[in-house]
Amino acid sequence: MSAYQSFRDHIAQINDLLNVFNILNWDSHTQMPHGGAETRGHQLATIIQIAQERFASDTTARLLDAVEPEVEDDDYYSYRRREVQNTRWAYDIARRIPATLMSRVVGLRPTAEQAWVDAKKHNDFARFAPYLQQAFDYQKQLAEAIGYVDHPYDALLLRYEPEMNVERLRYLFNTMKATLIPLLQKIVARGDVARSDFLYGDYDEGKQREFALGLAKQFGYDLNRGRLDISAHPFEVSFTRNDVRITTRYQRNYLPGALFGVLHETGHAIYEQGASPTLTRTALTTDFLGNYAVAGVSFGAHESQSRLWENQVGRSRAFWQLHFPTLQRTFPDQLANVTADEFYCAVNRVRPSFIRVEADEMTYNFHIMLRVEIEIGLLDGSINVADLPEIWRAKMQEYLGVVPPTDTLGVLQDIHWSMASIGSFCTYTVGNVMSGQWMAAARRDLPTLDSNLSGGNYAPLLAWLTEHVYRHARAYSPNELLIRATGEPLNPDAYLTYISEKYSDLYDIA
Amino acid sequence: MSAYQSFRDHIAQINDLLNVFNILNWDSHTQMPHGGAETRGHQLATIIQIAQERFASDTTARLLDAVEPEVEDDDYYSYRRREVQNTRWAYDIARRIPATLMSRVVGLRPTAEQAWVDAKKHNDFARFAPYLQQAFDYQKQLAEAIGYVDHPYDALLLRYEPEMNVERLRYLFNTMKATLIPLLQKIVARGDVARSDFLYGDYDEGKQREFALGLAKQFGYDLNRGRLDISAHPFEVSFTRNDVRITTRYQRNYLPGALFGVLHETGHAIYEQGASPTLTRTALTTDFLGNYAVAGVSFGAHESQSRLWENQVGRSRAFWQLHFPTLQRTFPDQLANVTADEFYCAVNRVRPSFIRVEADEMTYNFHIMLRVEIEIGLLDGSINVADLPEIWRAKMQEYLGVVPPTDTLGVLQDIHWSMASIGSFCTYTVGNVMSGQWMAAARRDLPTLDSNLSGGNYAPLLAWLTEHVYRHARAYSPNELLIRATGEPLNPDAYLTYISEKYSDLYDIA
Repeated sequence: MSAYQSFRDHIAQINDLLNVFNILNWDSHTQMPHGGAETRGHQLATIIQIAQERFASDTTARLLDAVEPEVEDDDYYSYRRREVQNTRWAYDIARRIPATLMSRVVGLRPTAEQAWVDAKKHNDFARFAPYLQQAFDYQKQLAEAIGYVDHPYDALLLRYEPEMNVERLRYLFNTMKATLIPLLQKIVARGDVARSDFLYGDYDEGKQREFALGLAKQFGYDLNRGRLDISAHPFEVSFTRNDVRITTRYQRNYLPGALFGVLHETGHAIYEQGASPTLTRTALTTDFLGNYAVAGVSFGAHESQSRLWENQVGRSRAFWQLHFPTLQRTFPDQLANVTADEFYCAVNRVRPSFIRVEADEMTYNFHIMLRVEIEIGLLDGSINVADLPEIWRAKMQEYLGVVPPTDTLGVLQDIHWSMASIGSFCTYTVGNVMSGQWMAAARRDLPTLDSNLSGGNYAPLLAWLTEHVYRHARAYSPNELLIRATGEPLNPDAYLTYISEKYSDLYDIA
Repeated sequence: MSAYQSFRDHIAQINDLLNVFNILNWDSHTQMPHGGAETRGHQLATIIQIAQERFASDTTARLLDAVEPEVEDDDYYSYRRREVQNTRWAYDIARRIPATLMSRVVGLRPTAEQAWVDAKKHNDFARFAPYLQQAFDYQKQLAEAIGYVDHPYDALLLRYEPEMNVERLRYLFNTMKATLIPLLQKIVARGDVARSDFLYGDYDEGKQREFALGLAKQFGYDLNRGRLDISAHPFEVSFTRNDVRITTRYQRNYLPGALFGVLHETGHAIYEQGASPTLTRTALTTDFLGNYAVAGVSFGAHESQSRLWENQVGRSRAFWQLHFPTLQRTFPDQLANVTADEFYCAVNRVRPSFIRVEADEMTYNFHIMLRVEIEIGLLDGSINVADLPEIWRAKMQEYLGVVPPTDTLGVLQDIHWSMASIGSFCTYTVGNVMSGQWMAAARRDLPTLDSNLSGGNYAPLLAWLTEHVYRHARAYSPNELLIRATGEPLNPDAYLTYISEKYSDLYDIA
């Protein structure tokens, strides 16, 4: 057996274990009866422990040492070489992280989460502050263990968006603010331009499901390798490209929630389903640092697909000119006196608000910038935990012009920090930016793209994205993918043009 | 850390892995999209391989050596001592089985199963014969590896019904035949005594589900730790006592299928749910030889519970006198002119038939005896594979008085042999026999049992079974449980009395 084959077999079993971990999580959130939670926790812990032990083992080192000479003459872009290279990169980082530190991080979570729930309930930030301090102290230690050149936050970003660092994030955010802040001010000054009352009617869940899933199938979501279930918090998860599942949550009195939620998760799902079959059970569908089986190359790249299909396709005027009649037939009473254009305007309404997960396509970016800036400051010591509520309010005022009346509606709203998840927020905005680049490049390459989309023919766009993004799974970094497909690395210009044109038109701004 | 704690931690992770294996299987049969089958196969193989390696490892031997002195002065019936003792017993057997032989057994399955499907489809036993021969040759080698005193079949029974052997099975079957064959002849001579046309009406699946699940809950199935789904072949599976799931298959045109199927699986489920919480993730909820996480102590003991709740409770006259009015309200048109007594008679109709899985409560035992006698003969060489079709027909004539017109309806009907599953058939009849003993002992201990059951109060019976059977999980062997609860080991008298009285009454036989 070749060194490469031995290496591949070893990785394949780690990939199996991480896919099993995904299955257990999916079941926990969609099927498991309440009573099963405690023992499910043990099952999850055992699987992840075995996967981690196997990856960080001397066996992995031995197999890497043996396979590296075998692939060193491969083409720089060959999948085989990338399998080995990516594994070596992750292995060297994983070996630098002390097991004791990781168990402290994991051990803090349950109490920190409980303190967060308690603090949020009583609008009392002080109850959560010591746990938040502890969480960031551990993350500082983690950053030191991993190592970095300029800023400790860069080490934490490796897990989520490996090519990002503090310097690039600051430049990105400043560029975006220069366009988005004045635009938002004009939108707010303009006020509501269309009605949206009909979004809050009585919408049967079964019909919501049928309509949304119909669109998902038209986008190209293959239900022979997927399914849609219900969960409290919507998500997508894959167990190889052959079994990619999504969930949603139906709100009977608010139509857009499940509708755009399904389109969003569908974007994630078709990314996973589009990975090359040759990469199944390989290092190129394994996130070793995150202990996660996944085809998407980074959180931002993944988010670029959910946002592309949800927003750039699913919230476009052409989309609703085509699909609104069907929606209206599905809900004839609720949408009796509504036009396609009114529907399009309503689902694109911009309104600064306190809560990130309820934010519209445009203001969402400010919720992200605020959080990332706070994380960076907490990690380098330029911000103190005690000052967080005040800093939160100041940034909300600066970016969105609204100030949450309570910490529950402000600094305490997200679960992330209580779970020691630091460094992932930026990937939402990175995803928005990338989605603009993909769409611009697809338009450049496919002259008939817009007429295809207007006619409901999504196959050319899916084929383009599969060719340039999906099939490669984790073989090429986000910037490699972007450069190969668009000619340049991450760049917000296309996204800012898209946002400016869309909202200038919607809000009739010169 | 004590040697016992180290031992327990090691076993707990093996138990987690086997529970995970159960979850993956449940998902495969109830939720997984078709496309997921191939990679699911890899995931299952990886999990079971890791579990087997861990159990048959030197670590297990070292931990056993260390813990045995620590528990040797424990009470003979203490759970702690039994955890160690049962693990040692299984470990010594597992170490005697060559890994190469097991991989040959497993490797034969896909081709053997394909040959069986093909042979069954074309009614051509010769196509399956060579694979059957090979399967039994491997099973002979397995029996030699495990070791036995009297008969190689005894070694194969260890996996399913460890206290059974060929001698005891022959005695059991002969005793049963002496009563059941003449009784069946009288029943057949009597002919149908009641109508059963109404069982084949048009029964809405949703209402079938609601009614059957209502009964399951009344029996004591805790849905906070369980759920009911649909699968092609009904089954029960547990992922610790905290998550015990059942499945069924609804036949729109035949009411008893799902109805009694759910009661049957409920019996399995409440056995699993009734295990003592202190035994979760221990050796006493792990079947090491079968690589299966389960609380039931043997296949027969498990079957005794499904059959007790399905047949002794669920097919009794008192049961339908109580519940038929509700069933009639659920299906008012379909059951308009039917009485409770007619329904009771219809669901207890005895009719010799070709197919085991469609057989009634009484003739089922003959289908089992026939198969077990053939397995024993194939293993000791007293029966040749080539003669099977003829032997099958002869035994069908002898026991049931009917002869299948084709091998598809005869020797080729079961999937078991193509899967190298040899030794499990007897557990169905052992389960029937045990169910008679439990019920007789419960009646003896609980003078008001029958009036409780007539009134729909199942709690006293559940409490008695939990006390004497369920809570102990795999701590005591089936005969230990029987002796402690009933005063004697496996004995068919009570079951034969139950069957004779029930069917003499139903068929008006003196």
